[in-house]
Amino acid sequence: MRATVMRQRQLMADNLPAPQPGPGEVLVRTLACGICGSDLHFFKYPETLLQPADLERGIVMGHEYCAEVVDYGPATERKIKPGARVCAMPVLTRAESIEIVGYSVGYPGGFGEYMRLPEALLLPVPNGLSTERATMTEPMAVGLHAVQRANASLDDAPLVIGCGPVGLAVIIALKLKGIAPVVAADFSPRRRELAKAVGADIVLDPKNVSPFASWSEAAAVTDPTRAVRLSPWTPAPARRPALIFECVGVPGMIRSVMAAAPPQARIVVVGLCMERDSIEPVNGIMKELSIQFVLGYNGEEFAATLHNLAEGKINPEALVTGKVGVEGVAQAFKDLASPETHAKILVEPWRS
Amino acid sequence: MRATVMRQRQLMADNLPAPQPGPGEVLVRTLACGICGSDLHFFKYPETLLQPADLERGIVMGHEYCAEVVDYGPATERKIKPGARVCAMPVLTRAESIEIVGYSVGYPGGFGEYMRLPEALLLPVPNGLSTERATMTEPMAVGLHAVQRANASLDDAPLVIGCGPVGLAVIIALKLKGIAPVVAADFSPRRRELAKAVGADIVLDPKNVSPFASWSEAAAVTDPTRAVRLSPWTPAPARRPALIFECVGVPGMIRSVMAAAPPQARIVVVGLCMERDSIEPVNGIMKELSIQFVLGYNGEEFAATLHNLAEGKINPEALVTGKVGVEGVAQAFKDLASPETHAKILVEPWRS
Repeated sequence: MRATVMRQRQLMADNLPAPQPGPGEVLVRTLACGICGSDLHFFKYPETLLQPADLERGIVMGHEYCAEVVDYGPATERKIKPGARVCAMPVLTRAESIEIVGYSVGYPGGFGEYMRLPEALLLPVPNGLSTERATMTEPMAVGLHAVQRANASLDDAPLVIGCGPVGLAVIIALKLKGIAPVVAADFSPRRRELAKAVGADIVLDPKNVSPFASWSEAAAVTDPTRAVRLSPWTPAPARRPALIFECVGVPGMIRSVMAAAPPQARIVVVGLCMERDSIEPVNGIMKELSIQFVLGYNGEEFAATLHNLAEGKINPEALVTGKVGVEGVAQAFKDLASPETHAKILVEPWRS
Repeated sequence: MRATVMRQRQLMADNLPAPQPGPGEVLVRTLACGICGSDLHFFKYPETLLQPADLERGIVMGHEYCAEVVDYGPATERKIKPGARVCAMPVLTRAESIEIVGYSVGYPGGFGEYMRLPEALLLPVPNGLSTERATMTEPMAVGLHAVQRANASLDDAPLVIGCGPVGLAVIIALKLKGIAPVVAADFSPRRRELAKAVGADIVLDPKNVSPFASWSEAAAVTDPTRAVRLSPWTPAPARRPALIFECVGVPGMIRSVMAAAPPQARIVVVGLCMERDSIEPVNGIMKELSIQFVLGYNGEEFAATLHNLAEGKINPEALVTGKVGVEGVAQAFKDLASPETHAKILVEPWRS
């Protein structure tokens, strides 16, 4: 099969044997697969997940896929017909280990023509839902999970820092829950446009305006019963509770958010930062901040997201800014380094 | 009045004018006042709270006091009779600032013979409660607040790292709520003894045993309905939810707790760390950890703690290991640097 392989820290189009579905597994043909920020992180720091021998041998990334059932391995129930389109969360949890499709030698991902997937994880894609929109299930589930894990409620006044695909997914999940106004910040004009397109109420450039000053204005209490109960130790004007989503994931972000956050703020870290970072605990203590780190989603959140897409309840199509074949993936990784042109690029491995 | 003054980074016994109670304030005579770990921190980093001119002029620390009403300022209700014993939380919250008794030039603390306190904050000390035990209201309220802020429940399996006065207060608050078993760790034999005395169920020396290994054994699930719902991304044997109290407050502790914590752990930072610290966000993300920083208590928690002491529901007397007059405070600060001899030293400013 044709696939983009990451080998020796390079991305190259190559021919590989198609994977063989094991017991309980299904062979699927990739229709489209998004490139995720995590893929870019992993390309930079592959040793965080893989052994040197595996890096030599090469792996096929891609975990935001929509695929078509081709064939069944042994011991399968075969309820979904060959030719049917499916999505599936890419996490295979076993007793003592996990494998993630697209970050594993044994489970090549959606930047290749074929994948093996556990039958139990397959979710049929409803007829009305386009393949392109179906690939957004995975990244949109990340936003839903972040908002759920934060126990976000209608009382909260959210601030989203960073409007890349993760930040946009968080904005979409907040809007779905009816939480408003959503304040969002990004240095990039293109990303601010996207933030508006997916429903952020107040979108600002941190170069010109402090996100926390904008938040403070937006979170002012008109209905006093919605005011946050402050600690007696931290004087501050009454505001709705601050719920801050850190969706940038570079060193220094957590520290600067902690420094600027209002008292009692809940900070949700969705951005993936692979480097060691520094913080000032005294800011956390004096303001009684909480920091919730989040990752991925669970099965219910993934299925709910596919449903929301099919029902038209969330509309992330503005995020898809390009499509490439396996030969185009290396360049797409470079293009995604700049926020101005692209948000989400889909790989279609069947493209010649 | 006689008082221990912190001036030019030294602690010295001195004679000062007694404070004058302003409108709504009461003049009280200090009966006893505990030395807090925060006082030791503040002695080391006074510039974090005070201006250079105030450090020159000097301040009187002490915020864990029991005192006796002496006289009333103007515009007071005078419901508590002169001679009656009182406790009061030391935090004066105004619209745009706070003052903390004992960390303020205007409000000298309990290391001096007299204080001015807002009448509205005074709580009468019930007759059966000794002055010594009443001074434990403030430090014990810190433990109650940490446990409340963590939303600790009977399902949680707690681990307390560090058994100084803060860790001991957390253990006492956990036991009061019936949360068991409480696993507690400290390098000091004396502090491990105190942890046992106040009710910790499993007490260990981190030099010999990993606190997280002990926790893991103690948190094993016998009743499967109490098992934590793990993320699909983090394989781990079923355990009750980890609730970890970081009560040490030195750089590196948060990072090492994050590295060793089980998936989905909630980390409550009660120890005060004044230095910049470093963390590995990737540990937080991969295990979806949460970090809740906490400070102080609110008025309800303070009053509930005084009530619990009066009712004999909590019994922290093992913590009081010494008493000094104003001349003895400087030496007491030095003694408290070693965990082996002392936990809580009370200052009795009326002692000659």
